[in-house]
Amino acid sequence: MIRVLLVHDAGLLRSGLEALVSKAHDMTIETAGWSRSLPATRTTPADVCVMDTEGLRDSALDELAAALRRAGAKGSRMLALADADRPGALRRALDAGVLGFLDRNATPDRLLTGIRNVAQGKRFVDESLALAFLRASEMPLTARELAVLKVAAEGAGIDEIARDLSLSGGTVRNYMAAITRKTGARNRVDAIRISQRAGWL
Amino acid sequence: MIRVLLVHDAGLLRSGLEALVSKAHDMTIETAGWSRSLPATRTTPADVCVMDTEGLRDSALDELAAALRRAGAKGSRMLALADADRPGALRRALDAGVLGFLDRNATPDRLLTGIRNVAQGKRFVDESLALAFLRASEMPLTARELAVLKVAAEGAGIDEIARDLSLSGGTVRNYMAAITRKTGARNRVDAIRISQRAGWL
Repeated sequence: MIRVLLVHDAGLLRSGLEALVSKAHDMTIETAGWSRSLPATRTTPADVCVMDTEGLRDSALDELAAALRRAGAKGSRMLALADADRPGALRRALDAGVLGFLDRNATPDRLLTGIRNVAQGKRFVDESLALAFLRASEMPLTARELAVLKVAAEGAGIDEIARDLSLSGGTVRNYMAAITRKTGARNRVDAIRISQRAGWL
Repeated sequence: MIRVLLVHDAGLLRSGLEALVSKAHDMTIETAGWSRSLPATRTTPADVCVMDTEGLRDSALDELAAALRRAGAKGSRMLALADADRPGALRRALDAGVLGFLDRNATPDRLLTGIRNVAQGKRFVDESLALAFLRASEMPLTARELAVLKVAAEGAGIDEIARDLSLSGGTVRNYMAAITRKTGARNRVDAIRISQRAGWL
């Protein structure tokens, strides 16, 4: 039996996905919201952890990956549901050690296939996500630029960003100019919008 | 039999919700993504149309409501899945004529109860959404201010907003100042962030 831990924050959608997995005779399933997912890794040993990348807050996936490793669940065999038009979310999932990537638009059968592959430690990627992976590899911003943009996106002005990241105002301005140029944006608001839409932020 | 039309853009989550509704013996269900939802109202007469407000683009709900009315589906008996912390999305759904509101965190039983109530033309609102409705009634921005903020959120500068909306630059600046004050924001980026988080934008 493949033991599946399913993490999704919206209870109703979690129940829906649970209903799909329950139909497979070779799987058992436990579910949790993100806030309960970390303790769940301790109480419910799982072979595969399935999670939706939608609405995922920044460090949640890293924390879950670490918790799965601590729980000794064969490394971190994670299967992420991803949107084809959000390469940034894909990239962050890849960096967190996710093994399988399933299009949120996939069929229920594909979900079961993905779970079985990842349970065996195999990489699994939906074809429809290929272009998003290519775009994910082209992420134009450096880690420092992303950090600046993230604080800016929270509504901080130049001075506040500088204080937050222990930089000079001039340096922050230079970063913002580079970010705007690299994302092909018209201005700061546009750079934030473009980066959020792609899932970089 | 209650005929349900379920609209969700992510195929896998749509299948999951379909599995939950399929368990009810008094319902039949058809599903569609948003792009197919308008033709679906013509080919599949439905008593209740269930949709997720997540990731909903601006006018989609209004267009669906109009299509349902044209199809003569007893007015527009719609049941929306909503997040408790996005009063703006709730408000737009209310304005579009949605009759029932179900928390995205609800149980499968609650979904069926919601469908049955809305099928009878009854208003249905999850208790957990009550506070969000209160906050939705407190939306601080006028329609014109929202229009300005929406163009700004797309990355347009003052001049471009003025051109887009046939206003003077000074007027746009006044609107932006009012928006920043009313939303309790620190600056324009912050006002956009606050309004997006609440679902006003």
